[in-house]
Amino acid sequence: MNENDIKTRNAQPADHATIIAALQNWWGGRDLTAMLPKLFLNHFNDTSFVIEKEGEMIGFLIGFMSPARKNEAYDHFMGVHPDFRKKGIGSMLYEHFFEICRKHGSHMIRACTSPVNRGSIGFHQRIGFRLEPGDDEVDGFPVTRDYNRPGDHKVQFTKVIKI
Amino acid sequence: MNENDIKTRNAQPADHATIIAALQNWWGGRDLTAMLPKLFLNHFNDTSFVIEKEGEMIGFLIGFMSPARKNEAYDHFMGVHPDFRKKGIGSMLYEHFFEICRKHGSHMIRACTSPVNRGSIGFHQRIGFRLEPGDDEVDGFPVTRDYNRPGDHKVQFTKVIKI
Repeated sequence: MNENDIKTRNAQPADHATIIAALQNWWGGRDLTAMLPKLFLNHFNDTSFVIEKEGEMIGFLIGFMSPARKNEAYDHFMGVHPDFRKKGIGSMLYEHFFEICRKHGSHMIRACTSPVNRGSIGFHQRIGFRLEPGDDEVDGFPVTRDYNRPGDHKVQFTKVIKI
Repeated sequence: MNENDIKTRNAQPADHATIIAALQNWWGGRDLTAMLPKLFLNHFNDTSFVIEKEGEMIGFLIGFMSPARKNEAYDHFMGVHPDFRKKGIGSMLYEHFFEICRKHGSHMIRACTSPVNRGSIGFHQRIGFRLEPGDDEVDGFPVTRDYNRPGDHKVQFTKVIKI
């Protein structure tokens, strides 16, 4: 992959439709569209961004700086096009997000994922995220049960970055 | 209703379970729990709050100041316990939110609701919200089709407050 073809740019509200289509197609049948109402693109686009190759979106990260938790940032959702996985795009997304966090003075980064998403758990561990304690375990991973709502269990991650 | 019994306090992450239960029970069977993942309570509790009567939650408003849109605020979700409707609790919630917005210098307030929720549309109109133009109409109301995702149409509101 020629990295010169790849561009990172701030997200904008008009990206919502493209990202919703990705949420329907990039996760092998899981429909994740309810996780990204338009408010995230309207109001957090200054800390969210997309990666494009030849004008086509191949990755995105939707994040924000926590207003209530000083010096914390939250990665709400990130995704890489299935054809472009295992090429470093995920790390590139996080490196770019960490740069944004540094500019805002946020050194504690949080994220979470579903225990079914082993790829995401492994990825977060490889790039230095720590698994937070939960109140249960699924296949050896600490899980917080009913985290977002009944039945929606989550594995939680934290990473402290140098600022 | 004795207003002395009523207390407004900042939301906190531990309120999430109570609010999730309200989302299952206060809207006559519509399950709205997917709209309020825990991140809203973790990170926007400084601009969100609950109203309690004798220690029981009877209303809540989850909102935030927009980082990307200067001087704008967004009411993501508000609710009033069915037994306490038509008693001014909704107006009380918004008045308190407007106070928070003024402190942050936010004079443009946005919110949206589903076209099926006539009570919410009427309420927002009564307290001075304007219906934004959409790309379609449902029973005379302007609606933006597929606003959050395919099939999730929304009526959008704005109100400018004095600061």
